[in-house]
Amino acid sequence: MTERSADRVAAWERRSEIPLLLLAVAFLVAYAWPVLDPTLDAGVEDSLRAVSWTVWVAFVLDVAIRLVLADHRVRYARQHWWDIALVALPMLRPLRLLRLLAFARLLHRSARVNLVGRVGIYVSGTAVAAVGLGAIAVLDAEREAPDATITTFGDAVWWAVTTVSTVGYGDLYPVTTTGRLVATVLMIVGIAVVGTVTATVAAWLIAEVADQPAEPPPTR
Amino acid sequence: MTERSADRVAAWERRSEIPLLLLAVAFLVAYAWPVLDPTLDAGVEDSLRAVSWTVWVAFVLDVAIRLVLADHRVRYARQHWWDIALVALPMLRPLRLLRLLAFARLLHRSARVNLVGRVGIYVSGTAVAAVGLGAIAVLDAEREAPDATITTFGDAVWWAVTTVSTVGYGDLYPVTTTGRLVATVLMIVGIAVVGTVTATVAAWLIAEVADQPAEPPPTR
Amino acid sequence: MTERSADRVAAWERRSEIPLLLLAVAFLVAYAWPVLDPTLDAGVEDSLRAVSWTVWVAFVLDVAIRLVLADHRVRYARQHWWDIALVALPMLRPLRLLRLLAFARLLHRSARVNLVGRVGIYVSGTAVAAVGLGAIAVLDAEREAPDATITTFGDAVWWAVTTVSTVGYGDLYPVTTTGRLVATVLMIVGIAVVGTVTATVAAWLIAEVADQPAEPPPTR
Amino acid sequence: MTERSADRVAAWERRSEIPLLLLAVAFLVAYAWPVLDPTLDAGVEDSLRAVSWTVWVAFVLDVAIRLVLADHRVRYARQHWWDIALVALPMLRPLRLLRLLAFARLLHRSARVNLVGRVGIYVSGTAVAAVGLGAIAVLDAEREAPDATITTFGDAVWWAVTTVSTVGYGDLYPVTTTGRLVATVLMIVGIAVVGTVTATVAAWLIAEVADQPAEPPPTR
Repeated sequence: MTERSADRVAAWERRSEIPLLLLAVAFLVAYAWPVLDPTLDAGVEDSLRAVSWTVWVAFVLDVAIRLVLADHRVRYARQHWWDIALVALPMLRPLRLLRLLAFARLLHRSARVNLVGRVGIYVSGTAVAAVGLGAIAVLDAEREAPDATITTFGDAVWWAVTTVSTVGYGDLYPVTTTGRLVATVLMIVGIAVVGTVTATVAAWLIAEVADQPAEPPPTR
Repeated sequence: MTERSADRVAAWERRSEIPLLLLAVAFLVAYAWPVLDPTLDAGVEDSLRAVSWTVWVAFVLDVAIRLVLADHRVRYARQHWWDIALVALPMLRPLRLLRLLAFARLLHRSARVNLVGRVGIYVSGTAVAAVGLGAIAVLDAEREAPDATITTFGDAVWWAVTTVSTVGYGDLYPVTTTGRLVATVLMIVGIAVVGTVTATVAAWLIAEVADQPAEPPPTR
Repeated sequence: MTERSADRVAAWERRSEIPLLLLAVAFLVAYAWPVLDPTLDAGVEDSLRAVSWTVWVAFVLDVAIRLVLADHRVRYARQHWWDIALVALPMLRPLRLLRLLAFARLLHRSARVNLVGRVGIYVSGTAVAAVGLGAIAVLDAEREAPDATITTFGDAVWWAVTTVSTVGYGDLYPVTTTGRLVATVLMIVGIAVVGTVTATVAAWLIAEVADQPAEPPPTR
Repeated sequence: MTERSADRVAAWERRSEIPLLLLAVAFLVAYAWPVLDPTLDAGVEDSLRAVSWTVWVAFVLDVAIRLVLADHRVRYARQHWWDIALVALPMLRPLRLLRLLAFARLLHRSARVNLVGRVGIYVSGTAVAAVGLGAIAVLDAEREAPDATITTFGDAVWWAVTTVSTVGYGDLYPVTTTGRLVATVLMIVGIAVVGTVTATVAAWLIAEVADQPAEPPPTR
């Protein structure tokens, strides 16, 4: 990739970031509303479907423009296979909500808090977002299933909490393939959250220990 | 905030710490007794309710006095939103027990043990307190529910243990919204406990490794 | 405690270590055999009960001798409250098996492997011992219970594995108070095992990173 | 072991690595196919059984050749007891798939990514391989059991995911001894995966903290 081409792609990404983020918020509304309110008016539902498609078109355009601007298209496509998969595969539709991760990037840039504080904000934010979006996505997948146990939004949120924390009581669990995919994503998020909490405590503790005079290891 | 105002607030917090802690213990008794003994005499229950209200009034007064003493009231209120939320929102009532965390602060000040020992005491203390208070709170929430599985204090303690350890057998689980909120708090405590145990072991192990001569990485 | 008294106590502890360990092994046999084979001959069972009582007497004598040898008896008793509780409280009977931890101490002394290898041996040994002893103890507690789900040794081992790993399917779970106490101990062991595995990986990884030239943090 | 003998063993291991890996892939196909398609033609099944036996013979030959080449056969056998156990014990048959770990070694040798990236690839690869192979092995064990809950490949994959993540809903669980052994291996993999994720985050975080100016510990 030449210097100039890389510059052009970066400039486009910078300029398109906020609009794409707003479109992702619109997509969230269009995705979540019919799930949360199944008795929705048909007209409203049509509008929301239109919003959803518009966002998809915008995402496709974004990827296309970046591919056009890049010099080495094949290499660029291979490096950004994730973005392409998200617009090409309809079954990854709920994952388009991952665009909202751009919020984290905005936060990161403007952040003035220290590292441990920032990690805390990320972890809390990720956990809350995962529970919320996971509950919506699993409810969307399970509601119609004949022997589903997750049938209300309250149940879905509760199920998402037990999954992210890896407690997994088993009073509620997904039975559809889509629901189980959502569960798998939630479990991965859960493992990452547990890992990050542990790592933050470890980082603080090790810094404390390094500051102290040496002490004998605990004996039993 | 001027130097003098900050001083006055700090002086008040120092002087009010022990009385508020004793009030929190009284609140714990007034909260837990009717839950543990549902056949309580009506007169005793009335007295306990009076104690509970008195503690609430004292907590409100404490927040009010600190707001009066502070110069920049809005900023102070924003920094201490948690204290205000605890007295303003009746549904956070069980969380007033968090005042008992002041015990940890007292311990911290008088502690002469080393860091690892202190962390061990904190973790054990937090886990035991979380199991005890969580069991009381969940029993309070679930007892009346029609299809509740947690109906005795023994069951509630056992459920709290399986939740804090993130094992979650699922033989018992909360069905009410309040009970599920309590469960969420317990899960967060559980993740923090697991994280702290891990971090303490890591800190000790890394210090050991740093003291040793270099060794080759384990190969498979 | 005077120099001489501390010396005498230490000398006794050194000389009594191996005999007490052998007695603990005998206790394990006397405890586990009737649990694993409920159709045991009455005569054999009586002998095993005699062995169990003999071990208890030996443990009491050991504590008594150490108390006699020590100068400051009250302080010594307070420092070794755990040893005293194990012989004084009959409900802690299964926990007398913890004496077998002396095996770990022997291993530690003769160990020529490096730290990471030693930690690996400890973790595997602890996990296997916890599963085995936990299965025996829970089977002993649950077998008679009317609505128990754990009724064979195979089931008990499987339950112990799901508990130590904090997976907790919930197909099997204890229903008696003693069984739940055993489960709580197993969960604590499980958390410690997970923590130690994590810490060992972390110690190795951090040593690797420290040896490498600096690298940029992973970006998304 | 003399210099020359060690050289000869190493040369053999180097030369036999790729062929043995290909044989392990063939074994995977021969093992997995009949499990995934129980309506398989009898002739095909016979061929697959022949493939399976051929691979076993090749593994036996490999171990035999290495034993012949080594000078101190007993010591070599003791150091490689795992390889010998895998070909000697028919009940460890599913574990012969562990040969596929050689893929990781190939990757390791050709890897140009940094440490954190490599750990990420290992963890993802291990988790995906464990879920896939574990699902096949558990399905093979459970399909015939009278009260099995895991009866289709989709269910087996879902069960493996909940086990590796240590969530363990308990909607599905193995009931046969072989299935429970597979579950135990999956749980150990799960604990290692969680530990490695945590350790990677910790290593990155601690490196970040070390680069920053000192900051006060978080206060409550």
